[in-house]
Amino acid sequence: MPKVRVGVLGATGIVGQRFVSLLVDHPWFELEALTASPRSAGKPYAEASKWYLSEPLPEDVAELTVLETDPREVEREADVDLVFSALPSDVAREVEPKFAEAGFAVASNASAYRMEEDVPLVIPEVNPDHLGLIDVQRDERGWDGFIVTNPNCSTIQMVLTLKPLMDEFGVEEVIVSTMQAVSGAGYAGVPSMAILDNIIPYIEGEEEKMETETLKILGELDGDRIEPADLTVSASCHRVPVLDGHTEAIFVSTTEEADPEEAAEVLAGFRGIPQERGLPTAPERPVIVREEEDRPQPRFDREAGDGMSVVVGRIRRDPVLDGLKYVCVGHNAVRGAAGASVLNAELLVSEGYL
Amino acid sequence: MPKVRVGVLGATGIVGQRFVSLLVDHPWFELEALTASPRSAGKPYAEASKWYLSEPLPEDVAELTVLETDPREVEREADVDLVFSALPSDVAREVEPKFAEAGFAVASNASAYRMEEDVPLVIPEVNPDHLGLIDVQRDERGWDGFIVTNPNCSTIQMVLTLKPLMDEFGVEEVIVSTMQAVSGAGYAGVPSMAILDNIIPYIEGEEEKMETETLKILGELDGDRIEPADLTVSASCHRVPVLDGHTEAIFVSTTEEADPEEAAEVLAGFRGIPQERGLPTAPERPVIVREEEDRPQPRFDREAGDGMSVVVGRIRRDPVLDGLKYVCVGHNAVRGAAGASVLNAELLVSEGYL
Amino acid sequence: MPKVRVGVLGATGIVGQRFVSLLVDHPWFELEALTASPRSAGKPYAEASKWYLSEPLPEDVAELTVLETDPREVEREADVDLVFSALPSDVAREVEPKFAEAGFAVASNASAYRMEEDVPLVIPEVNPDHLGLIDVQRDERGWDGFIVTNPNCSTIQMVLTLKPLMDEFGVEEVIVSTMQAVSGAGYAGVPSMAILDNIIPYIEGEEEKMETETLKILGELDGDRIEPADLTVSASCHRVPVLDGHTEAIFVSTTEEADPEEAAEVLAGFRGIPQERGLPTAPERPVIVREEEDRPQPRFDREAGDGMSVVVGRIRRDPVLDGLKYVCVGHNAVRGAAGASVLNAELLVSEGYL
Amino acid sequence: MPKVRVGVLGATGIVGQRFVSLLVDHPWFELEALTASPRSAGKPYAEASKWYLSEPLPEDVAELTVLETDPREVEREADVDLVFSALPSDVAREVEPKFAEAGFAVASNASAYRMEEDVPLVIPEVNPDHLGLIDVQRDERGWDGFIVTNPNCSTIQMVLTLKPLMDEFGVEEVIVSTMQAVSGAGYAGVPSMAILDNIIPYIEGEEEKMETETLKILGELDGDRIEPADLTVSASCHRVPVLDGHTEAIFVSTTEEADPEEAAEVLAGFRGIPQERGLPTAPERPVIVREEEDRPQPRFDREAGDGMSVVVGRIRRDPVLDGLKYVCVGHNAVRGAAGASVLNAELLVSEGYL
Repeated sequence: MPKVRVGVLGATGIVGQRFVSLLVDHPWFELEALTASPRSAGKPYAEASKWYLSEPLPEDVAELTVLETDPREVEREADVDLVFSALPSDVAREVEPKFAEAGFAVASNASAYRMEEDVPLVIPEVNPDHLGLIDVQRDERGWDGFIVTNPNCSTIQMVLTLKPLMDEFGVEEVIVSTMQAVSGAGYAGVPSMAILDNIIPYIEGEEEKMETETLKILGELDGDRIEPADLTVSASCHRVPVLDGHTEAIFVSTTEEADPEEAAEVLAGFRGIPQERGLPTAPERPVIVREEEDRPQPRFDREAGDGMSVVVGRIRRDPVLDGLKYVCVGHNAVRGAAGASVLNAELLVSEGYL
Repeated sequence: MPKVRVGVLGATGIVGQRFVSLLVDHPWFELEALTASPRSAGKPYAEASKWYLSEPLPEDVAELTVLETDPREVEREADVDLVFSALPSDVAREVEPKFAEAGFAVASNASAYRMEEDVPLVIPEVNPDHLGLIDVQRDERGWDGFIVTNPNCSTIQMVLTLKPLMDEFGVEEVIVSTMQAVSGAGYAGVPSMAILDNIIPYIEGEEEKMETETLKILGELDGDRIEPADLTVSASCHRVPVLDGHTEAIFVSTTEEADPEEAAEVLAGFRGIPQERGLPTAPERPVIVREEEDRPQPRFDREAGDGMSVVVGRIRRDPVLDGLKYVCVGHNAVRGAAGASVLNAELLVSEGYL
Repeated sequence: MPKVRVGVLGATGIVGQRFVSLLVDHPWFELEALTASPRSAGKPYAEASKWYLSEPLPEDVAELTVLETDPREVEREADVDLVFSALPSDVAREVEPKFAEAGFAVASNASAYRMEEDVPLVIPEVNPDHLGLIDVQRDERGWDGFIVTNPNCSTIQMVLTLKPLMDEFGVEEVIVSTMQAVSGAGYAGVPSMAILDNIIPYIEGEEEKMETETLKILGELDGDRIEPADLTVSASCHRVPVLDGHTEAIFVSTTEEADPEEAAEVLAGFRGIPQERGLPTAPERPVIVREEEDRPQPRFDREAGDGMSVVVGRIRRDPVLDGLKYVCVGHNAVRGAAGASVLNAELLVSEGYL
Repeated sequence: MPKVRVGVLGATGIVGQRFVSLLVDHPWFELEALTASPRSAGKPYAEASKWYLSEPLPEDVAELTVLETDPREVEREADVDLVFSALPSDVAREVEPKFAEAGFAVASNASAYRMEEDVPLVIPEVNPDHLGLIDVQRDERGWDGFIVTNPNCSTIQMVLTLKPLMDEFGVEEVIVSTMQAVSGAGYAGVPSMAILDNIIPYIEGEEEKMETETLKILGELDGDRIEPADLTVSASCHRVPVLDGHTEAIFVSTTEEADPEEAAEVLAGFRGIPQERGLPTAPERPVIVREEEDRPQPRFDREAGDGMSVVVGRIRRDPVLDGLKYVCVGHNAVRGAAGASVLNAELLVSEGYL
C-alpha cells in the first residue's frame, strides 16, 4: 500500500509538534507539508518552530519549508490528500472548510466544527460508526473533501473510561473535576508567574466542552444525525503546575450495581476497532487499570501506551451517585490531541475513506 | 482579665510553628510551654525547631526550653491551664487523655479523638453548642480537664461553606474533589521527587475524614450525644505542588432551588458567634466570595482574613445534583489547623469553660 | 512639607504594580497619575491592570483613570513633578526624554539611558554623589527636567555587597553566577512550559548589564563625567523556577587579605546616606548577614527589610581569586526595581532636587 | 564471552534503581543479586523498592529476593564476581572493604573511599590508566578483590569538560557554580516544602568534593600513587527545583589563548577509550556542544546520549580568569552516578581485571 501523503496545518505549536513527532516514521502516512501563520511561512520548519519535545527533530522535517495555511498554496507546493489541523479554533473555523471544499480530508483537533450536526466527533474505540456523517456532510455542503474532528483533551480521556462502564452498567450522571497540565494551553498559554505554587480554577470553555461533547460522542447515529446520549455531565476544570498529562476525578452513577473490582475488569478489558484491526497508533490497551492506592500520577502514567492509553486507578464506590468514583490520567497532547487525530485518520484509511 | 496561660504540644512541626505564631502576641493567651519528642526536649526552641515561617521567630520564644510531652513535666515546669495539641495522631491518642485527666483543657488539632462520641468536634461559626459534650465527657471519663477537637483541614473549609447553604437551601448530597497543598503533610511529608511536575491522587485517611467528620459537625446535639446530619458526602483527595492552601471543587444538591447569585449572598453574609463576639482570631468574614471568573487561587487567597477566611468563587448551577457547584480555597495550616484550635480555645474562654 | 505629586509610567506590569504598592501610603509622595499603552488608556486602573500582588489594591488607586504615556496628557490631567518609569526599554528610550524636556523629573527603572555619560546611575547607599551629573545633563540637553536611573535588578544587589568589601579590602575582580526569579521577565515573560522542572541558562542582555553597570556605579564622579571603577566583572545569568528573589553566587578578589568573619562584620555594618537620613523606603540594614549554613534562600529572605535589604550568607575564602565567595539574595522587583527608583527619588528630595 | 555476573549493593534507592535499569539488558553483565538494609532483606525487590523510574520495572528483577548487604550472604545466595555499590557513604565505609576482602570487585558510587591513596577514582574517558592503582591496593591491603570508585555527580560532568580544554589550552584555575537537581539528594532527600519556589544554596560536602576529587582525577599516576593536578578549583553549590540533571556555570583560565569556537571544536571532538573500544554504556560523544543561545537546559538535555553525554553551551570568553566560561548539563543519576560505575566496570572488563 503506498503511503497516504499528509500535511499538518498549524505545525509550529505544541500540538503541531506532536503531530510531526507522530507522523515522522508513520507506516501509513508520509509527511509532506507543514503550514503556519504568514509570519512563519517561507522559513525552514526548524527555524519557524522552537522545537521543545524531548526527542530530537528529524533532519528532513527540519528542512521542510513552512507553507501558508491556504489550500491553494498547499496544493501548489505539495501533493497531499489529508491534512491534520492543529489550528487555533478561530482560524480553523475560517480555514478548514476551504480545505474540505478543495478536496482535502481534514482530521481536525480544533474545536470549531466539533458540535456541527453533520461533522463526526470521533474516538475510534468509542464511536467509529459516526464516520457515517461524512456522507451527510458532503451531500449537504457539496464538498469533495470533508472534516472529521476529535474531542477536547479532557473529554477524550473521560469518555474512554465512560464507554465501557456505560455498556456494562449504564451511566446516566457524571461529575468530573479536572487537574489539567499547562501544555494544554499551548506553549505560552500559562505564564510561570500564574501557576508556580498555585492552581487556577478556570479554563475558558473547557467545562462546556466536557458537558456537551460527551453527549454527542456517546450518542447514536440515527440516519443523518446524532441522537445525543441520555446523560448529564457536570464539570469543574482546574489548571495545575504539571507539564503534560491531565488528571481527572470522576464520579458516575450506574444503573446496575457496579462493584469496583468488576468495574476494574470491565475497564481493563475494553477494546475497540483500533485494537482489533491493529491500527498503527492504537495502544494495546485503551484503558490501563493500576492497583496501587496512589496511582495514576501524571508524571509516571502519561506515557503509558506511548501516550495513547488512559490510566485509571482508585476505583471505589460512590455513595452520592450510587455508582463509582475513580481517577484517570491521560496525555493531553497525545491521546488528547495529536494522537487522537492521527488515530482518526488511521480509522478513515481502514474504513476506505482515503 | 488576666491572660490564660497556655502550652503547645508537638510544637516543632509545621502546625506547631503556626500555633506559636498565632499565640505569640495573642491578647487572651500567654504562651508558657512548648513540648516535643524526647529528642528535642531540653533544647531551646530555636534549636529544636527549624523555623520555616516567613515572619521571624520572636526571641523570647526562641529561648524557651522545650519540654517533654508529659503532663507531669508540663505541670512541674510551667503553670498552664490549656494545651494546644499539634501531635501526630498516634501520639495524641496516648497522650491527650493523660493531659485531660491531669486537669488540662486540651484543644486538639489531632484526629485521634475527633469521632469519639463524647468529644466535641467544633468549628465555632458552625456548631458552638457542641461544646455541651464537655460535661458528658467529664462525667463519663472522670476527668478534671477535657478534650475539644477541630476537624481535618479539608473538612473545615468545606463545612464553613456548607453550613450557610444548608441553612438556607437544604443540602443532602455533597461531592468534593480536593487539590491539597504539601504543607498539609508536614514539613518532610511530601518529597520534592514525588510532587514536582506531578499530582498524587491519594492522601491516607483524608476522604474518610471528610465523609464522616462533616456529618458529626453538622449534626445536632441531642442530650448527651450528637445526632449526625442527614447528609451524604463523597470525596476524592489529591496532593498538588502548592505550598499552602487547599483548593476544593464542591458539588451540592439543594432541597430548595438555589440561584448562584442568591447563594453568593448567603455565603458572603454568613456570620457566627466568633464574629458576633469579636473573638480575637475570628476573621471579619468567615466566607469571602470573589466574583472573578478565575478565583479563588491558593497563592492569592490563602492569606485572606489572615488565613482564617475561606474564599469561594465560580458559584454556578450543577445539573447533576440539581444544586450548585463552586470552588473554595482555605489556608490548611491556619484555618485548617492551628487557627482552628485557637478559635476553639477562644470560644471556650468566651463560654466560660476556662 | 507638602507631598511631592508623582506618577508612574507603565503602571500596569509587574514593576508598575510594585511602584503603586510602594507609593500608595508613601509619606513624601502622592500618587496622582498612572500611564500605560494606548490600549489601556481611558480605563480604570483596576480594569487595565490584572493585580497580582498579595496585598490588595487600594480602592482609590483602583479607580484612577489610566492615562496615555505622553507628557502633554499627564500635564493636562494631573499636576505631577516626578514620574517613575517602569517602561520597557524601547518605549523608555523614546518617551523619557520627552518627559524630561517637559520639565518632569524622571526616576527610571528602564535600561535605556543607564549608560549615557550624563545620566546618573545611582544606588543611594553606594554613589549618591553621582546625582551631580544632573546639572551636566540639564546643561547639555537643555532640559527643565532630568532623568535619573537605577541599575538592573541583578546588578543592584551585587553592588550593594561589593561596595563595603571594596572600601575595606579592595576588589578588582568579580565572577558571578545568578539564579534569577521569573518575575524579572515580567508577568508573561517566562512560560510555565519553559521553566517547570528546568533552568534556562540565558537572559538577554543581563550579563552585559552586570558587567558594565557595575563599573559605572562604583566609578568616581570626576567633574562632568564618571571615571569607571578599575574592576573586571564576569557574569553568567540563569533563570530558575522561583517567583521572586534573585540568588547570586559571587566570587571576588580582595587586594588585602580578607577573613570571612571580618567580611561578615563589614557587610553587616554597611550603612549609607539613606540610613543616616532615615529615607522612608530605606531599610535599616542594606545588607543582612545570615550565619546559617543554608541561607540565604529566596523564599525566606526576599522580604527582608520589606524587600529592600540584600541578604548575604555562606561567606568563605575563595582560593582562585584569592579573596572571598558568598551567596546573596535580593528582591528583584523591590530593591531590584521599583524600590530602587523610589529610594532614588527620596534621595532627590533629600538633596533638594525636588 | 559469558556474561559477568553482578550484584547491586543498596539497590532500592534512586541510584540503586538506576543501576538496575542500566543492568537489566546489559550485554556484558547479568544481574543476579540485589541487596538492601535488613528491613528490606527477604522481600521481593518490587515490594522492597518503590520503583519511580519512567520505564517499567522488568518482571524477573521485580521477583528477585533482596539480600542483606553482607558478602557472606551474597556469596551464599548468588554467584557474582562484581558488585556495584549505591550505598550511603557511612555504610559503604564499613561494608565495601569486606566485599573486596572476600574477593569481589567493587565498582562504587559511594564517596567513602574515593580519596584514599590506593583507590582509583576513575572517569574512563579521562584517566583510565589510574586503574593501575588496583595492584597497589591489593598488595597493600591483601585483598583478593578491590574497590574502584567514580567521582561525585557534579564533579564528573565538570571534569569531562575540563579534560579536553586542559589538554588543548592548559587550565590552572576553575570557578564553578552548580544548580543541582533534587534527585541528587535521594528520593526523600529534599522535601517539597524546602524547594518549591526556592533555591537552597548549600549541599553538604559537595563543594569539597568538587575541589578535591577533580585534582585527583586529572592528576598523574606516578608509580604507586597519584600526583594531583596543578589546578585550583573553587565551587559554590546550590539545589534547585529540577527533578534530574545538574546545571553548572563554569569559568576557567587557559594557559594558551582559547577562542570560543576553537574550544567548541575541542569539546565536541573529545573521545576516549570508551568510545574507541565501543564500551556498551559509552555515549557516542562524551561532550555534546549546542549552538543555541539558551542551551543546555536540564529538561531537554539530561537524556542526551541516554544520559551519558554532557551537554555544553554558551561558550564565551571570560575576562576575569582570562579564559573561557560556559554552561554544562549532565544527568546526575546516570553519567553522574550509576552510569559512571557501570562504565568503570566495562573498562575493568575491557582491561582484563574481570
